[in-house]
Amino acid sequence: MPDIEAPSASGETGYGPLSATARTKHNRLREQGRGSRADLAAVLRAGFIAHLGVPAGQGVMVVPTVYGFDDRFVYVHGSVASRSLAADTPEVCLTVTIVDGLVLARSVFEHAVNYRSAMIYARPRIVDGPAEKLAALRLVSEHLAPGQWDYARQPSRKELAATRLLALSLAEASVKIRTGPPDDADSPDAELGLWAGELPLDTRWLAPVPDPALPADRTPPAHIFSRAGNAAHPR
Amino acid sequence: MPDIEAPSASGETGYGPLSATARTKHNRLREQGRGSRADLAAVLRAGFIAHLGVPAGQGVMVVPTVYGFDDRFVYVHGSVASRSLAADTPEVCLTVTIVDGLVLARSVFEHAVNYRSAMIYARPRIVDGPAEKLAALRLVSEHLAPGQWDYARQPSRKELAATRLLALSLAEASVKIRTGPPDDADSPDAELGLWAGELPLDTRWLAPVPDPALPADRTPPAHIFSRAGNAAHPR
Repeated sequence: MPDIEAPSASGETGYGPLSATARTKHNRLREQGRGSRADLAAVLRAGFIAHLGVPAGQGVMVVPTVYGFDDRFVYVHGSVASRSLAADTPEVCLTVTIVDGLVLARSVFEHAVNYRSAMIYARPRIVDGPAEKLAALRLVSEHLAPGQWDYARQPSRKELAATRLLALSLAEASVKIRTGPPDDADSPDAELGLWAGELPLDTRWLAPVPDPALPADRTPPAHIFSRAGNAAHPR
Repeated sequence: MPDIEAPSASGETGYGPLSATARTKHNRLREQGRGSRADLAAVLRAGFIAHLGVPAGQGVMVVPTVYGFDDRFVYVHGSVASRSLAADTPEVCLTVTIVDGLVLARSVFEHAVNYRSAMIYARPRIVDGPAEKLAALRLVSEHLAPGQWDYARQPSRKELAATRLLALSLAEASVKIRTGPPDDADSPDAELGLWAGELPLDTRWLAPVPDPALPADRTPPAHIFSRAGNAAHPR
């Protein structure tokens, strides 16, 4: 089946390899887990949208969000009023997934997805103080649209106050990656004579579309213009 | 700021418009909420990866997964051993997000993302019995790779037994969509003379890549071959 399993496994603790706790330890598909912090950074660098899961009553809420990161933390932000960023949130899970293609096997059961995924478990820390907030917002902004921080108007004191920023430690994280052809080339199903392989997915930035309110002669800055045609999730 | 808020709001109950409970009621950015079941179906149709959030100890786990759906349920599957699909899961949240582009405003604060997103809250029901399981797996398979269900070998009795399928009711769901240019064309920031607009994202299927184990003369079936060049998240 087309199936993405829980990204799992890891290695050790601290700023070396990723920590392996009960929930980040590989318990299946061991071969797909990656244990290095370089793998984690590569997934965070290649993606730009995360899904943040927070406890909500008896259940949970999963919210898409942009993010930024440095060596130690991933940063997410939102309005102070946002329910997903409550100050008393005990623990959250942030998952970044990049889909690279469909894996078409001989059997429906062996269908899969080629992907890169990172899961981060952390108790969020509220980023406080204008300087630290500005630094974290800059990381988010520059990760999403490099060059915009210095080009656009930076946040005012009032805007900063209206923005809640959470820092999630990267200490407890896991990475899972699948690449390549289906796994059933050596199975009895190979005798069926069916085609099998990968249907790759390509995600690119297109040419910038100007705000209709702009004067016709206003051209995009070089850092935006030059992005067109580039892969949005580079390897 | 580049900011994706919690997809929110909806309309009514049942199979008409979406239900509005405390958590799916718009509490901000009201203009972006969509209340019709047609909007929900459109987002589910356009996407193919969901992020499933399940309670896990004191926190949560957010797992990427493929899905299928019909008028009443969305179906997700995984191994019987998978931690995210435990039989006693009280309530989950399934979020499907399609990113359509970055919204580049005059101020960093007004940066945003153009996207389509659906959030479904449900207490999962385990799909039981080979016939219902097969039907649900077919929905998942055909949503991901139309035509593969009849082309590839279908699940055996043993494979079916190893697969856990969950049905999540679509009764409590919300949809949120953002399109168009930035919101600050009428603000004082327009005087800054900066470029503003959208950087669209394009996600397409590429030409199928054959499994290296295949004989060189094995060509992809028409339903796969013809997908190349098509948008992966059609509107």
